[in-house]
Amino acid sequence: MKPVVDFIQNNADRYVEELREFCAIPSISTQAEHKPDIERCARWLADHMTHIGLENVEIISTAGHPIVYADWLHAPGKPTLLFYGHYDVQPPEPLELWHSPPFELTLRDGDLYARGVVDDKGQVFIHLKALEAFFKNGGRLPVNVKFMIEGEEETGSENVYAFMQKERERLACDALVVSDTTMLGKGIPSVCYGLRGLTYFEVEIEGPSQDLHSGSFGGAVPNPINILCEMMAQLHDKKGRVAIPGFYKDVQPLSKKERAQFKRLPFKDKNFQKTTGVRRLVGEKGFSTIERIWARPTLDINGIFGGYTAQGAKTVIASKASAKFSTRLVANQNPAKITKLVRKRIERLAPPSVKVKFTVHSQGDAWVSPFDHPFVQAGKTALEQGFKKKAVFIREGGSIPLVSTMYKRFRKPCVLLGFGLPDENAHAPNERLNLENYQKGILSVAYFYHAVGEINGNARGGGGKGRKAR
Amino acid sequence: MKPVVDFIQNNADRYVEELREFCAIPSISTQAEHKPDIERCARWLADHMTHIGLENVEIISTAGHPIVYADWLHAPGKPTLLFYGHYDVQPPEPLELWHSPPFELTLRDGDLYARGVVDDKGQVFIHLKALEAFFKNGGRLPVNVKFMIEGEEETGSENVYAFMQKERERLACDALVVSDTTMLGKGIPSVCYGLRGLTYFEVEIEGPSQDLHSGSFGGAVPNPINILCEMMAQLHDKKGRVAIPGFYKDVQPLSKKERAQFKRLPFKDKNFQKTTGVRRLVGEKGFSTIERIWARPTLDINGIFGGYTAQGAKTVIASKASAKFSTRLVANQNPAKITKLVRKRIERLAPPSVKVKFTVHSQGDAWVSPFDHPFVQAGKTALEQGFKKKAVFIREGGSIPLVSTMYKRFRKPCVLLGFGLPDENAHAPNERLNLENYQKGILSVAYFYHAVGEINGNARGGGGKGRKAR
Repeated sequence: MKPVVDFIQNNADRYVEELREFCAIPSISTQAEHKPDIERCARWLADHMTHIGLENVEIISTAGHPIVYADWLHAPGKPTLLFYGHYDVQPPEPLELWHSPPFELTLRDGDLYARGVVDDKGQVFIHLKALEAFFKNGGRLPVNVKFMIEGEEETGSENVYAFMQKERERLACDALVVSDTTMLGKGIPSVCYGLRGLTYFEVEIEGPSQDLHSGSFGGAVPNPINILCEMMAQLHDKKGRVAIPGFYKDVQPLSKKERAQFKRLPFKDKNFQKTTGVRRLVGEKGFSTIERIWARPTLDINGIFGGYTAQGAKTVIASKASAKFSTRLVANQNPAKITKLVRKRIERLAPPSVKVKFTVHSQGDAWVSPFDHPFVQAGKTALEQGFKKKAVFIREGGSIPLVSTMYKRFRKPCVLLGFGLPDENAHAPNERLNLENYQKGILSVAYFYHAVGEINGNARGGGGKGRKAR
Repeated sequence: MKPVVDFIQNNADRYVEELREFCAIPSISTQAEHKPDIERCARWLADHMTHIGLENVEIISTAGHPIVYADWLHAPGKPTLLFYGHYDVQPPEPLELWHSPPFELTLRDGDLYARGVVDDKGQVFIHLKALEAFFKNGGRLPVNVKFMIEGEEETGSENVYAFMQKERERLACDALVVSDTTMLGKGIPSVCYGLRGLTYFEVEIEGPSQDLHSGSFGGAVPNPINILCEMMAQLHDKKGRVAIPGFYKDVQPLSKKERAQFKRLPFKDKNFQKTTGVRRLVGEKGFSTIERIWARPTLDINGIFGGYTAQGAKTVIASKASAKFSTRLVANQNPAKITKLVRKRIERLAPPSVKVKFTVHSQGDAWVSPFDHPFVQAGKTALEQGFKKKAVFIREGGSIPLVSTMYKRFRKPCVLLGFGLPDENAHAPNERLNLENYQKGILSVAYFYHAVGEINGNARGGGGKGRKAR
C-alpha cells in the first residue's frame, strides 16, 4: 500500500483542480433547460473514467438522464464491488445567498465551495482518485469494480430502476458501495447503516379562473392561498406528529438497544442547533433530536407559492396557489402506500369550492442494514486508517432510494462511507466539502478497496442473503 | 349642450389614440425600478392638461410620487368640483397570462385592453375629454374645477394626505368627484355611495438561518412554511369569519332598509360566479354575496412565498417564508385599531421557535355616504342621459381611502361615477375598459358638469355639512 498512499499524498493539489472541472458543469437534473449540461457532465465523467484506467466505459441513454457505467474485472477470485453515485446536482437558487459563484469551485478557510461538491461529485471523485492511485502504482486494482453513476438522483432516480432490472447480469456484485452521506461530525469518520425513505408531492389549488381584485371579490370567492394554508396546517397535530390517518401504522419502533446506542454517540443538541441557526429545536414529542432525524417519519413543506410576491402591495386574490411537500419515511413504511394516504388526505381536506391537482414527484424506501458484515467492518477499519480517528456507525435522515431498492432486490450488503459534514449545505447555498475530509477520504477508500481484496470467499457471504433489515 | 355632445361623438377615435399614449407608460407605483416611468407619466399628464385648456398646471413633488394639479376657476357663482384620480397602476405580473402586451392598448371585441385602462387612466381621461369638449366649444366650463391626480393610489396614497393637509385652501371645493369604481353590470350605469376600507400587511417567518436539507434536518427544526401555513389558517374560523379577537367589534350592521334595497338590485349570484370562474361562491355565513363584498369586512392572503418553487423537486427546508395579506373594512372600523389587533394576533400565533417580521403596507377608512345631495342626484341623472338607461345607487367592495379621508375632513359630498365593469380585471392580467362605456362615460360626465353648473347656491349646501355617514 505504501506507493499508493504516497501517490495520494503527493497529488492533493491535482485532485482539487480536477474536481473544479467536474463542479463547473451545472448538471441540474430538475430543470429542463439544463439537459445539455447533464449530457456534457456525463461525457466529461466517462472521459475521466477512461483516462484513469477503467474499462467498458459507456454512457447509457435512459428515458431521462444518462447513466455512466464503467468497470474493471481482472481480479479473479476477488470480490466485486458495485459503486453507485450521481453526477447530477440540486438547483443553486437562491443565487444571491452564495458567497462565491456556485459553479466555480472556491477554496475558503479549508473548505471547497461549489454546488454538488459534497452531494455527490466530490464523493464520487474520492473513489475515482483512489482507483487511479492503484492503476498508477502497479496497473491493477485489489478488487473487481463496477461503477454506475446516474444523473437523476435529485429527481428520484426513476430510470435507474428500469436499468437495474434490465441489466441484472451486468450489475451482479458482492456488495454495493456508496459515498453520498455525511460523517457524524468533524473528526468522527462514520459508516452509515440506515437511511430514511422519501415521497415528494405537489398540490395546486385553483379557486377563481383568474386573478381577481380583492376589493371587488374578497369575501365571496374561495381564496386558494387561504385554503392551501388551511389544508397544509392540518397535516400536523399539536404534538408535532403527521396528521394523516394510517401514516404511522407500519413504522418500525426503535429498539431499546438502538436508542441506548444513539445516546452514546458524540452528538450534541447544542451544536446541532448552532448549525441550523434556529431559536430552538422542535419535533415529535417523546423523541430525541437524533431519533427524530434518523428514525422517525416527518412531513415538510419544501416550497409554497401563490399570488403577488414582489415588492410592495397588490390587492389581488390569486387564481392558483401551490405547495411542494415531502415525507421522510422509516423502516417498514411503504412509499406507495404512504402516497395513497397522503393523496386521500389532501383530497379530503380540499373544500368543494376549489379544484385540486395532486402530483407525485418521487418515492423511495427507507433502508436499515445489519453492520456485522465483513465488508461493512472493513469500511470502518479503513476509515480509522485514513483518518487516524475512531470511527462510528450512524444512520442518516436523508434518502438514497436506490440503496434500499438494491438491498431489497439483490440482498447484498451496502457499505455507506460518507465524507460530508452535516453543516455543509448539501441542498442549500454555499454547499461545501471540507478539503481535509476530501483528501483523507481518498486515502480511506484506497485502504477500503485494499482490505476488501484481502477478504476471502467464505467471509463474503456473511450478512448478504436473506437477512432482515432491522 | 348640442355642440359639446356632437363634438364628443365626432372625436371617439381620437379619444382611443390619446388613451393609448397614456397607457403606454408603465407607471407602476409599487416597484421602485419604475420611478422614472412614474415621473414620465406625471409629465405626460400635466402636458395633456395644459393642452386641453386647464390652468395652473403643476407637478408637485412629494416624499413619494408626484401629484399632478390643475384647475380652471373662471365661473364665478358656480360650484367648484375637485376631481380626484390616479395615474399609477398595479404591477402587470403574471405577464404570461396577458393576451396582448400590458402596456400596448389593444382593442379586441369592443374592449380596450391595457394595464391601468380602467384603474384609473381611462376614467381620468373620461373627465379630461369631457372638459376638452367644453373648451373646444365656447372656450369655457359650466363649473369651476380643480384636478388632483396622484401617483400612489395603488400603494396607499400616503403622501396625498400630507398634501391635502397643507393645501386646504388650494383644494377648497363644494364636492369631490371620483371615477375609479365600477358599474353594477353592463348597461346599468351606477353611482357609488359606499367603499370598503383597507389594511395591508406582510409577515415574514424565519426558522433556520439558512436553507437546510430536509433529510438531514427534517423533523428536528421549525419549518417556516409549515408554521406560516398554520398561522394563516388560524385567521378564519369555520363559519368563514375573521378569527381575530375584536375584529368585528365596531362593524356598523346593515339596516333592514339597505338589505332590502340590495335585494332589489339587478344582481345575480350566477352571473357573478361566472365572472369569477369559481366552482361555488363562499363567504361569511348569514350574508348574501352582495352584502359580503359591499358591507362585511374580510381578510385575504394576497401572496405567499417560501422555499423551492421552480420546476421539479428540491428537498429543502427554507430559512424564511412570507405572506402578504389584507383586510377589507366597513363603516366604523378603524384601520389603525385593526392593525393593532392583527399584529397582536400574528405575534400570538407565532411559536417561540421562529422570528417574526410584521410590516404594515397601507391603511384606509371605509366610506358610506347619503345619496340625497343634489350633486349626487345630478350624477345619477347625467348617467341616465349619457347611457340612455336607468341608473342605480350601489356600493363597492374596493377601497379609495382618500374618499373617506376627504369626506371626514371637509364634510363635502363625494360623487362617485364609475365606468368600469366588475369583470374588467382591474388588478389582474388582461385589464380592460369597455369601449362603449368609455365613450358614453365622456358624454355622461359632460352632462354632469353641465347639470352641476345649473344647481343654484341654496341647493349646494344640502348634504354637505355635519352629516353623518350611515
